[in-house]
Amino acid sequence: MSKSELNLMADAACCAEPVVRDPLTHTEAAELAAVFKALSDPVRLRLLSLVASRAGGEACVCDISDGVEVSQPTISHHLKVLREAGLLTSERRASWVYYRVVPEAFARISSALSTEDVPA
Amino acid sequence: MSKSELNLMADAACCAEPVVRDPLTHTEAAELAAVFKALSDPVRLRLLSLVASRAGGEACVCDISDGVEVSQPTISHHLKVLREAGLLTSERRASWVYYRVVPEAFARISSALSTEDVPA
Repeated sequence: MSKSELNLMADAACCAEPVVRDPLTHTEAAELAAVFKALSDPVRLRLLSLVASRAGGEACVCDISDGVEVSQPTISHHLKVLREAGLLTSERRASWVYYRVVPEAFARISSALSTEDVPA
Repeated sequence: MSKSELNLMADAACCAEPVVRDPLTHTEAAELAAVFKALSDPVRLRLLSLVASRAGGEACVCDISDGVEVSQPTISHHLKVLREAGLLTSERRASWVYYRVVPEAFARISSALSTEDVPA
């Protein structure tokens, strides 16, 4: 998917109110802040990038624990935080839970941070 | 500035490593996480949107304290956090400090969250 397609999708489906167009309401600010809070931990960001950069765009804890300095239970906790923030989806297969990024969630954040309407 | 110009600028000048292309290094993850931490507070997000949506794209504490439920010293603290994260610049004029958004910082985050290279 190209960046322009992603932007279109963000405009059509995700519709996060841009931070820089109108003042955010309390509700909008609380929702966005919760997603940014999930992204505000370096280990979580590294795990997110490890999941997203895997061939097939998904990974289980077993796939990514080698590259990270924390234990598997800690990795599972961080992945759960990312899932609860809507940035990952999960699917259990046999003994493992597989995680996959949610492109719409990333598009929503990009849409919220769009500066195309910053007053000159 | 159009979104495409902003993307070009992000590609040319800001060059945040996309979270979803390659695993982030420790340094990249720490830098990005610090910016997301600044954005992870609902009051800070509302203040950021109040500054950015003002005519002229800038505001001082005196301009935005009416719309926010916290004291002026607390507002000043939050604006300082946003400035230290590179999301706002500040300039003192007479008795007041004026804040302005940094579009390049927003473009950098959008670039880091681009999902155009997520493996199919």
